[in-house]
Amino acid sequence: MRNLTMMTDLYELTMMYGYLRENMQDRRAVFDMFYRGQPDKQRHAVMAGVEQLADYIRDLHFSEKDLGYLRSLKLFDEDFMAALKNFRFTGDIQAVPEGTIVFPGEPLVRVEAPLFQAQLVETALLNLIGHQMLIATKANRIAREAQGDTVMEFGLRRAQGPDAGTWGARAAVIGGAASTSNVMTGLLFDIPVSGTHAHSWVMSFPSELESFRAYARCFPDTCLLLVDTYDTLASGVPNAITVFKELRAMGHEAKGIRLDSGDLAYLSIRARKMLDEAGFPDALIAASGDLDEYLIRELKTQGARINLWGVGTKLITSADMSSLGCVYKLSAMEDTHGSMQAKMKISDNIAKITLPGKKDLWRLYDPNGMAIADYITLAGETPDDRKPLTIFDPDEVWKKMTLTEFTAVKLQQPLFKKGIFVGTKRTPKEIALFRAKDEKTLWEQYLRTQAPHRYKVDLSDRLWALRADLLEQAGGDNT
Amino acid sequence: MRNLTMMTDLYELTMMYGYLRENMQDRRAVFDMFYRGQPDKQRHAVMAGVEQLADYIRDLHFSEKDLGYLRSLKLFDEDFMAALKNFRFTGDIQAVPEGTIVFPGEPLVRVEAPLFQAQLVETALLNLIGHQMLIATKANRIAREAQGDTVMEFGLRRAQGPDAGTWGARAAVIGGAASTSNVMTGLLFDIPVSGTHAHSWVMSFPSELESFRAYARCFPDTCLLLVDTYDTLASGVPNAITVFKELRAMGHEAKGIRLDSGDLAYLSIRARKMLDEAGFPDALIAASGDLDEYLIRELKTQGARINLWGVGTKLITSADMSSLGCVYKLSAMEDTHGSMQAKMKISDNIAKITLPGKKDLWRLYDPNGMAIADYITLAGETPDDRKPLTIFDPDEVWKKMTLTEFTAVKLQQPLFKKGIFVGTKRTPKEIALFRAKDEKTLWEQYLRTQAPHRYKVDLSDRLWALRADLLEQAGGDNT
Repeated sequence: MRNLTMMTDLYELTMMYGYLRENMQDRRAVFDMFYRGQPDKQRHAVMAGVEQLADYIRDLHFSEKDLGYLRSLKLFDEDFMAALKNFRFTGDIQAVPEGTIVFPGEPLVRVEAPLFQAQLVETALLNLIGHQMLIATKANRIAREAQGDTVMEFGLRRAQGPDAGTWGARAAVIGGAASTSNVMTGLLFDIPVSGTHAHSWVMSFPSELESFRAYARCFPDTCLLLVDTYDTLASGVPNAITVFKELRAMGHEAKGIRLDSGDLAYLSIRARKMLDEAGFPDALIAASGDLDEYLIRELKTQGARINLWGVGTKLITSADMSSLGCVYKLSAMEDTHGSMQAKMKISDNIAKITLPGKKDLWRLYDPNGMAIADYITLAGETPDDRKPLTIFDPDEVWKKMTLTEFTAVKLQQPLFKKGIFVGTKRTPKEIALFRAKDEKTLWEQYLRTQAPHRYKVDLSDRLWALRADLLEQAGGDNT
Repeated sequence: MRNLTMMTDLYELTMMYGYLRENMQDRRAVFDMFYRGQPDKQRHAVMAGVEQLADYIRDLHFSEKDLGYLRSLKLFDEDFMAALKNFRFTGDIQAVPEGTIVFPGEPLVRVEAPLFQAQLVETALLNLIGHQMLIATKANRIAREAQGDTVMEFGLRRAQGPDAGTWGARAAVIGGAASTSNVMTGLLFDIPVSGTHAHSWVMSFPSELESFRAYARCFPDTCLLLVDTYDTLASGVPNAITVFKELRAMGHEAKGIRLDSGDLAYLSIRARKMLDEAGFPDALIAASGDLDEYLIRELKTQGARINLWGVGTKLITSADMSSLGCVYKLSAMEDTHGSMQAKMKISDNIAKITLPGKKDLWRLYDPNGMAIADYITLAGETPDDRKPLTIFDPDEVWKKMTLTEFTAVKLQQPLFKKGIFVGTKRTPKEIALFRAKDEKTLWEQYLRTQAPHRYKVDLSDRLWALRADLLEQAGGDNT
């Protein structure tokens, strides 16, 4: 495992130096990580990245080489070097478990630690969680449009570097992909790997038919042939059928064919007919080539006969949204007298105003186990599900709803306590199963890829009042 | 250094297994890596990623753990395991040096090796080169629109994982960024790091003014203050000016301010005036917040007074184009008689037809050292610059041009010979300098971000004829 301690923005270190110089390093601070979301688009996200975050936190330390480099920058003094040399993370972290369906503005990771420590971890936390949530979310959208068909993650070659390909594939499986082409991800995370052959295989033989026969000899029971190297319907599918018949004569059943170019709806319909008529109604048709949730939806609408979807570039890079835009904001800090003060970033842009104070995140379920709303409280508040609870839209406060029968479940789980890892480690397969169950507790309208309905994320009375007070004070100060 | 041998698509391994079973593993094969480009958009790219590719190739080997995992897939036999155990790369690789300005369709990396080996490296090669070219190219576009202003790479937190942030920052410097916020990139590659403080610094103090004073105490000679936490013009800039005056009274000059939100054109013009009138005409104005080449261009058009550009998400993820779409195509292979045969992928889509044969890439310069055209030949052909050369558009062949005075320079350089690294290692600073010089040999119209003129990439007579012959043959076979 690589140590990522130095994977931080320089300004985290200059601020840490400043906090040390100002004797503020040990003040307790609370930071929240959340994403702001894209209005009217992609409302929900799939939580991911917590495992790598935990690895990073556990392994936080500065080596002599790191310190030597930082000294060479001539920005810092030896007191700071000593503080870095002794650095270890001693704080508390709560995080929403990987695989949970989450919504914009929710505190997904809460770091409470001495300011010196809480500041350092900002950059890596945003990088790891932000990237993996992005890909898990994209995969979830794609898998939802595939409507139960198998989605295979094929993007390694187009990923933004090795980590993006490797951890990205893990995130894709959390989000809904069934397998990956990336062998390293298979090795590291016990995730199913898939893949057969490329055009270069076909081109390496004197003819397409010979290449198919050779492939079938090697993999008689998992034979899936790429049929578009020369001419899909004129040569690819007929040659595949010839080989499938030869296999059957030897007691093997081929798996199917893959289309990688051309009009996938038309070609799959024609190929399906050819396969059926030749006696291979169970042969699968896999498709690949610039797929994403929009194209899959469109192909399904067009009646495409595709069973397996190999999704590459647009999944592994989340091509239509290259970043989830996660942020990490100070929400409370110990003052000079040792008491915690709520903090809030004021902005002219109301969407950028943050939620003050140390907070908890809850999900409220109805008696059928369906989610009604999420509910953000100040830490320590526990929604009392024995009596009615009135929730309201935090911006349009006249929109109210009184819940009489509900169960409140806390979404954040302890990950570190006093620097000790207290989380639970689950395999990506377990996380994917958890995500599939979690998805079923949310009505379809909140999760759909086109014009989703806005899921309620409300604030407790006390949190709402605190925010209003601080806004009022700030307005008084600044005008 | 991590070993990336297993970072490959499963299908590379299934094909390798097939080649071994078919006794084709030692046939010599030539593959070309190139990018297809975006029509009428982003014509040029900046070569990058070769250093990490070389690290990967040098370190190629399968560990016992890797073999154990592959065995567990139950796809392969023990002969294959033995072949992997003994695997090392023994081929030749030529690559265009990092920092070179390149164009669509050009063979940028040429791998010539036994088929078994040449196939394995496909995925990692595309991943490493594709990602780093993407970011170097995006940075180049941004730096060009910044017109000589300093561009600072700030994207680590939004990058698609640690590698994307770290190697991406290196690529950004190759492309034209002056520095990065990523301390790990600074450490690994001796690249300047930059950064000052965040909103959380300001919020950690009882007032903005106190936070500025504290920062100035820590960094009296490099003091650059973020002025938009509360109200840029009403509090941020006036407070910064107060502190700058206090610094000056103590014999220090502040560096400047940073704007991170709001109307950057308006705010920078107003802030410039305030700083000038207060006696700080040399104080710099840095800007950040959703910047890219389009917004920088627009801000310059609006008369923004910004000296330093901190570019984050949109640079480090290449937000408007998440992948360069590099491909790796078989162009020649030894036949059963031991002679090399040109190979070509035929496609209905003419843009997807590949260039057959083992090839060299040349750049033709005029007597003033300006590039006239690039010229792809079959390997072994050397453009004779002592006599006139007629070049022609490979698609619209009636478009011709006869060069009488020119110099031909080969762009690909040897990277590996018989598996031995023979490349030259340069620092990112050296590469950036090389890129800046290379850029100056290309006319502005080829490099501009809006509607660039199409740079000529022509084929030698022999290469053109070979392609035409193979197309003719294929047409005969398939219709």
